[in-house]
Amino acid sequence: MTKPISGHTGLLCLLGSPVAHSISPAMHNEACEQLGLDYAYLAFDVDENGMKTAVEGLKTLGARGWNITMPCKNIMCQLADKRSPASEISGACNTIVNDDGVLTAYTTDGVGFMDAVAENDVGLKGKTMTLLGAGGAATAILVQAALDGLKEIHVFNIRDGFFERAEEIVDTLNERTDCHVTLHDFSDESVLRNSIAQSDILVNGTNVGMAPNTDRTIITDPTMFHKDLFVFDVIYNPQETKLLKDAKAAGCQTANGMYMLLYQGAASFKLWTGHDMPVDIIKEKYFAK
Amino acid sequence: MTKPISGHTGLLCLLGSPVAHSISPAMHNEACEQLGLDYAYLAFDVDENGMKTAVEGLKTLGARGWNITMPCKNIMCQLADKRSPASEISGACNTIVNDDGVLTAYTTDGVGFMDAVAENDVGLKGKTMTLLGAGGAATAILVQAALDGLKEIHVFNIRDGFFERAEEIVDTLNERTDCHVTLHDFSDESVLRNSIAQSDILVNGTNVGMAPNTDRTIITDPTMFHKDLFVFDVIYNPQETKLLKDAKAAGCQTANGMYMLLYQGAASFKLWTGHDMPVDIIKEKYFAK
Repeated sequence: MTKPISGHTGLLCLLGSPVAHSISPAMHNEACEQLGLDYAYLAFDVDENGMKTAVEGLKTLGARGWNITMPCKNIMCQLADKRSPASEISGACNTIVNDDGVLTAYTTDGVGFMDAVAENDVGLKGKTMTLLGAGGAATAILVQAALDGLKEIHVFNIRDGFFERAEEIVDTLNERTDCHVTLHDFSDESVLRNSIAQSDILVNGTNVGMAPNTDRTIITDPTMFHKDLFVFDVIYNPQETKLLKDAKAAGCQTANGMYMLLYQGAASFKLWTGHDMPVDIIKEKYFAK
Repeated sequence: MTKPISGHTGLLCLLGSPVAHSISPAMHNEACEQLGLDYAYLAFDVDENGMKTAVEGLKTLGARGWNITMPCKNIMCQLADKRSPASEISGACNTIVNDDGVLTAYTTDGVGFMDAVAENDVGLKGKTMTLLGAGGAATAILVQAALDGLKEIHVFNIRDGFFERAEEIVDTLNERTDCHVTLHDFSDESVLRNSIAQSDILVNGTNVGMAPNTDRTIITDPTMFHKDLFVFDVIYNPQETKLLKDAKAAGCQTANGMYMLLYQGAASFKLWTGHDMPVDIIKEKYFAK
């Protein structure tokens, strides 16, 4: 930090486990330094059992806010005093703003997705999306995309524990938004093929294809791709998954999840500080492709 | 900081109220930077009512340790799992070391005093001291000096709330150490005069003479000084109190409390990190006379 930490320096942090290798401290401290904002952003390894105590402590210490990562995004949402619409619907949050002891939960992962897609000059308003997965990342994308004006979203998931939770969220989104959301069994291949054929964008929100399993892909039949499809993979390690390679070979425009991480951070930063993160500098230093 | 904060950076901090203007963050962050130690030291404004919650939070966050200042030194001592001899006797602490959730309380203010005196080539072992005051700073000095081998300490205080507490501490020191400690009413001027006449060192542990009341002094009759007396004032604002001016005029060697602050910090730093603080650099940057 150019400006050294003093008695006036405010605290921001990341809670979750593991957190030691997170890029968030580097990103937020750099942004604060660039803008001359007097905060220090640290990472604390806290599991679900420790969250209540950690959060009460952070309130007492007067921390301005914090990010929350796995496995603490749901418990944090419960511990907050208020919730943004996206956090309310998803039951999860990745950002807390502490206004003099009143904690408001936000989920900026979905915002990060929307901004990362926009970066590719791909508009989403009024469009149709096929979304693969119903875990944390996929849910954040689903909720934000429905709130932000997509016309249709078709969610596909295997019949695991997330499926039932997804049914509730899908119902809520159909009630509260103008987006038409449907939920399907991933094993129903003809429905999936039909959905992708109708879609403007295909999103992999699962971890299939993530290192070290880089030879795997969620779409094993590349004939499902079509040239007008934008394919987004939340995975950024490897930077180009087999899914993205296959899609590119089929003529699709593609993007990975790296900038989703950047833009969720930028959205959190704005909530805490009121300032726009200098994303160009952050990109260059920490998100070099 | 030369080394930026990352997900691996450990937390150190100061708890108390007020703390925003403390020099401790500057001192400890500079020392960590100089030695390449990966900690960030912040200050959190916490009062006595908030201490339990703050401390439980810091444990959960995995903070390595913290300093405690007014008004939280006594409550923190109660909240700790273990206490150093000096903390046990004084009932106060200014330093906590967190060893995997086990909190040990130390009071390094007295160590800071001993080191600050030693800086003046004044030996204290086997010597006689007159100590004015029985508040927090004076008690820390009293306890450490008795533990570190002074022969006699005569404590003087007005008959306020601290007097009774001082009686207990004096009794404990007479039981547990080889130092002979006596407690006197400050208004008993002939006893004070006699004590100073026998003493090698006179310490002002009260705030009499502190800015803005710089025309005041705890020793209003300068004939009490003698040439062989070393006079130490815990006050360092102003750097030379009326007490020190008068003592110097009477031919005494004198020192203020500035380096007591430095050396209490160095002792805390050593407890947390196992490393010696680079005091020469810290002196030059933050304790310029």
